Amino acid sequence: MPEPFADRLVAAIRAKNAPVCVGFDPLVSRLPRDVLPGLDRIQDSQHDRRPGFEELAGAVVAFGHGVIDAVAPLVPAIKINIAFFEPLYAEGINAYHALVAYARDAGLLVIGDVKRADIGHTTAQYADAQLGSMQPIADSVPVLPDAVTVNPYFGIDGVQPFIDRARELDRGVFVLVQTSNESAASIQGLPVGEGELLTDRVAAMVEQWASAPTLIGASRYSCVGAVVSPRDVSSTRRIRALMPHCLFLVPGFGAQGRTADEVAECFKEDGTGAIVNASRSVIYAFEQADGVTDWRTAISHACNDFVDRVRSAVAGARS
Amino acid sequence: MPEPFADRLVAAIRAKNAPVCVGFDPLVSRLPRDVLPGLDRIQDSQHDRRPGFEELAGAVVAFGHGVIDAVAPLVPAIKINIAFFEPLYAEGINAYHALVAYARDAGLLVIGDVKRADIGHTTAQYADAQLGSMQPIADSVPVLPDAVTVNPYFGIDGVQPFIDRARELDRGVFVLVQTSNESAASIQGLPVGEGELLTDRVAAMVEQWASAPTLIGASRYSCVGAVVSPRDVSSTRRIRALMPHCLFLVPGFGAQGRTADEVAECFKEDGTGAIVNASRSVIYAFEQADGVTDWRTAISHACNDFVDRVRSAVAGARS
Repeated sequence: MPEPFADRLVAAIRAKNAPVCVGFDPLVSRLPRDVLPGLDRIQDSQHDRRPGFEELAGAVVAFGHGVIDAVAPLVPAIKINIAFFEPLYAEGINAYHALVAYARDAGLLVIGDVKRADIGHTTAQYADAQLGSMQPIADSVPVLPDAVTVNPYFGIDGVQPFIDRARELDRGVFVLVQTSNESAASIQGLPVGEGELLTDRVAAMVEQWASAPTLIGASRYSCVGAVVSPRDVSSTRRIRALMPHCLFLVPGFGAQGRTADEVAECFKEDGTGAIVNASRSVIYAFEQADGVTDWRTAISHACNDFVDRVRSAVAGARS
Repeated sequence: MPEPFADRLVAAIRAKNAPVCVGFDPLVSRLPRDVLPGLDRIQDSQHDRRPGFEELAGAVVAFGHGVIDAVAPLVPAIKINIAFFEPLYAEGINAYHALVAYARDAGLLVIGDVKRADIGHTTAQYADAQLGSMQPIADSVPVLPDAVTVNPYFGIDGVQPFIDRARELDRGVFVLVQTSNESAASIQGLPVGEGELLTDRVAAMVEQWASAPTLIGASRYSCVGAVVSPRDVSSTRRIRALMPHCLFLVPGFGAQGRTADEVAECFKEDGTGAIVNASRSVIYAFEQADGVTDWRTAISHACNDFVDRVRSAVAGARS
């Protein structure tokens, strides 16, 4: 990995003309039937042989292969959420890393959506595990993502070890600033000063962390980015202005219902600065398909539509 | 598990006369030499055979067995931090669950320090994985902790699935309110209203979640508690008053330097309401021992001292 993460992401977005990321959130109950023929047995606890974790993890990996094959020609990056792997315990962790490796082999940048944080010396353990270490404690470390997401509630102590690893290993960190869920504003939207919300303050702090010269690449973006789900046009414009060196990872366009105008505000005037994520609306598109179309084809079509919608949103904002 | 978590914890504290929890944060580099004879090889990347993850995880489990054996007669609960297991990947997850099971068998209540949170439907996956599910997707679910820690940055959406599982399965949730790290105040200490800090607001929200009648046991405490590291006497007193139904999990007494007076403010006047954690000062006590004393004995002595110091702090505050 010779280049800084932000430069690689900016170049990959340009190469595919798609500031878009597909989120892989695999639910066992929604897997395509052909990757897990025993799916019906899962809900039936009386059945004499329910699938074990190894079989379930194998099915998640098979689904992941199909999703990655379908979207890799269209988008620069995939976001893999580890929460959907943890219910499969050790087998789930192996599946997560198998898919990180498969996605990188397919030419995708991989964002590990892990949302970790703790006090400093503990966060260092999370950073080693999830982003990598200069001195791995064993030889057989799995393939790790290009970037991960981190929770800001501890302040810089909870984030610094991730930033250090990102700088050392040319990887990235996206710090949660504004999340896409309904109750986010109950904390993130609290006023902390004159006309300033908690998200504005967190945004300013993350920009301060991000703007250290050693973290900034040729693209002028930092390896420290931010998760910003637009709440409305004006607050999104304010946060964008507060964070000139940060790439935004933008959830909520798709199943979660953010509008094109709101999402467009996450981009700078030159059309850079953000990568928009859709998860469920792409990877479960086959559930709305005609029953004849292969699930991989349905995902590919949905991904294509999503890329078009984001392109239009960004172009519309600049016209 | 017939009884609500809070009632079990209150009873266990009373039975051992020790409002104390030992934190298990195992660093491979600090393991006792006899559980990992190959430890010296870890720092030496030129060595022809460094230990693999399975060997390292086995050593962590052996250390955990020794710690649990040493502290189980003295304290009601152990807090196991999953961050220290994640660098061992799948083997680490297996080791974590092996120690959760071993600690429960030793009669300890187990707090899984996982600090998870995400948007609602994703948090549900974390809750299933870390706390349990009414409909497990496979038969061989590992033994899970009695309670876990959760991050509040998403608001109620990120916590509700944990609360639901806690109610259904008689388990518990400790929501981070005030953490023990140096930079905590940069976010948690922001003023959000007249004389009110973010921690006060989060405390009030967690109390509101905790005080639903279905969550409260015979002890009058809720299955929803809070992680509260005292910053100073007056703010701790304020937070204690804001959260009458919440048990506090109190980090920072020990290696992190909170005073007895500050810690005492986490308790109510009747001496209930908190469990004080020490991790490094207990489990690495053998590093300061005379070199002849067995590491288990050194840990046992340090744990005993710690219990005495917390008892004195609480008694001093009430005298």
